[in-house]
Amino acid sequence: MPEAILDVIAIGNAIVDVMAPADDADIERLGLAKGGMTLVDTERAQELYNAMGPAKEISGGSAANTLAGLAALGAKCAFVGQVADDQLGEVFAHDIRAGGIAFGTPARAGDPPTARCLIFVTPDGQRTMNTFLGASQFLPAEAMNAAEIASAKVLYLEGYLWDPEEPRNAMRRAIAAARDAGREVAFTLSDPFVISRHGDDFRALIDAGEIDILFANEHELAALTLIDDFEAAMEALALKVPTLVVTRGAEGAHAMKAGEHAHVPAEPIARVVDTTGAGDLFAAGFLSGHVKGRPLATCLKLGAICAAEVISHYGARPEADLAELTRAIG
Amino acid sequence: MPEAILDVIAIGNAIVDVMAPADDADIERLGLAKGGMTLVDTERAQELYNAMGPAKEISGGSAANTLAGLAALGAKCAFVGQVADDQLGEVFAHDIRAGGIAFGTPARAGDPPTARCLIFVTPDGQRTMNTFLGASQFLPAEAMNAAEIASAKVLYLEGYLWDPEEPRNAMRRAIAAARDAGREVAFTLSDPFVISRHGDDFRALIDAGEIDILFANEHELAALTLIDDFEAAMEALALKVPTLVVTRGAEGAHAMKAGEHAHVPAEPIARVVDTTGAGDLFAAGFLSGHVKGRPLATCLKLGAICAAEVISHYGARPEADLAELTRAIG
Repeated sequence: MPEAILDVIAIGNAIVDVMAPADDADIERLGLAKGGMTLVDTERAQELYNAMGPAKEISGGSAANTLAGLAALGAKCAFVGQVADDQLGEVFAHDIRAGGIAFGTPARAGDPPTARCLIFVTPDGQRTMNTFLGASQFLPAEAMNAAEIASAKVLYLEGYLWDPEEPRNAMRRAIAAARDAGREVAFTLSDPFVISRHGDDFRALIDAGEIDILFANEHELAALTLIDDFEAAMEALALKVPTLVVTRGAEGAHAMKAGEHAHVPAEPIARVVDTTGAGDLFAAGFLSGHVKGRPLATCLKLGAICAAEVISHYGARPEADLAELTRAIG
Repeated sequence: MPEAILDVIAIGNAIVDVMAPADDADIERLGLAKGGMTLVDTERAQELYNAMGPAKEISGGSAANTLAGLAALGAKCAFVGQVADDQLGEVFAHDIRAGGIAFGTPARAGDPPTARCLIFVTPDGQRTMNTFLGASQFLPAEAMNAAEIASAKVLYLEGYLWDPEEPRNAMRRAIAAARDAGREVAFTLSDPFVISRHGDDFRALIDAGEIDILFANEHELAALTLIDDFEAAMEALALKVPTLVVTRGAEGAHAMKAGEHAHVPAEPIARVVDTTGAGDLFAAGFLSGHVKGRPLATCLKLGAICAAEVISHYGARPEADLAELTRAIG
């Protein structure tokens, strides 16, 4: 196996987040599922945008957020995702490239426009996401470059993108390319709704040994394993996944690898401003340690530090110098 | 004179700010004029955007920022400005309307796109602005609605918009409409470069008694009056302008009206994060008191509170509840 050129190549939704504060009454009035992610069509997106207060646009997308964290930590990364040939597509492409991440997927001409996620952030820091997938759902299998995938230590896939058909086929092709090259495949389950629709696919991938590193939160773990008890679910899943990482919000996070079980408490922070991207940045920190061969507990600690940084401000991309924040333990 | 329906109608550039952190070495390497505003063409805008780090998009535009503050303080406001029929135009229109401000200027089809301002924010909180005016410079005189202008207590004009020819003609028409209706005309000088190009126009307007309320900072005051001594410049200009308001950064602000001279120190804040919009929000606070007939010192204090809020975070639109912040003195 030739030496890897990239640390991580990720395939994900190419989304610009549109974020505004809201209160619980807004969430209820608009019929939103607080704390969750809901897919919306053009009409519903317009309705919600009309009801939204003055907003900020900040590049997002789960796997892209993870890469932004990884690149900030010094990892060499590439992103594959579909934007449209429009202003928000330019914004997404600029931001990811400005973060030092290779991004070569050509923009898609015509409708639909670039994906956006309307995010209502309540005073408790919780984010309620409404995603208009737009161009993102048309990522074609042809956008997968087998040689580029083979050049990365880890292929990282976002569960959200498993939902639309074209990207799902693209990701299956990418998995095959990574496995053929003897690389690791990492997967994040993203959201319980994805598991409710594609849990059988995920379980089949896991049973077939296609997933080397799996990221989940406790709710996704339960939905995937159909086991309510946290410890029992971890134990059962860890038999099939070489590295299993499960976040539990304020309680911290757990990982199991080769029979070792590690835990890290959540990093203390002054105030939870916006939880958008917490899981994405946890994955960034963890993977940054993983690709450098750090011990499991160190990987978890790196994840906790990155997650704490991103929830202390608006937006799912890191703002503080993550390399500096992690220098002591990295 | 019929009772006013609006408190303030403003004419200004319709701009989306693209903001990113930078250090002094970046400012020097890119040949930027630190702390100033420079107009850039398409090519230079692209060059600077390529050199910029991951950014956030937040609606801006000087007069539009002022209205956002005024509306947050409960004033009834309308905005007139030109966006293009594109995604950033939708962002601008959404944000201003979501702030409770009437905005009826139709989007302009075709090129150029909506204006954007590339803002590099250095660790000292200073902002260095590079404005691509795009559609904004094509605001036509026909967009002026004399009846709407006549319905507002104050017509507020942004000096930046005096530079391109079409909006200059539009603003002359708006001034005439306001004066015909017996309303007040407020003007902000915006930037020394505008005075260097259009100082004669401004002095002629002032000599003709067309400006009732003038906003400037100390540098603009000197450039307009050609008097270096601050007090002497204030005294000379106040003879021709019924209400004169001059900001001096950390020193605070001064106002002169009908022979009265008032001063307010700057509000103490924990950290200057981003000075973008400081003058705009000072004008918002001042005008919110002015339209309610508050004493001069109170108007200044309202200005200082609003300016302090906006420089304590990224972006030129208020985030905290300005009405709550000013309740004790409003």
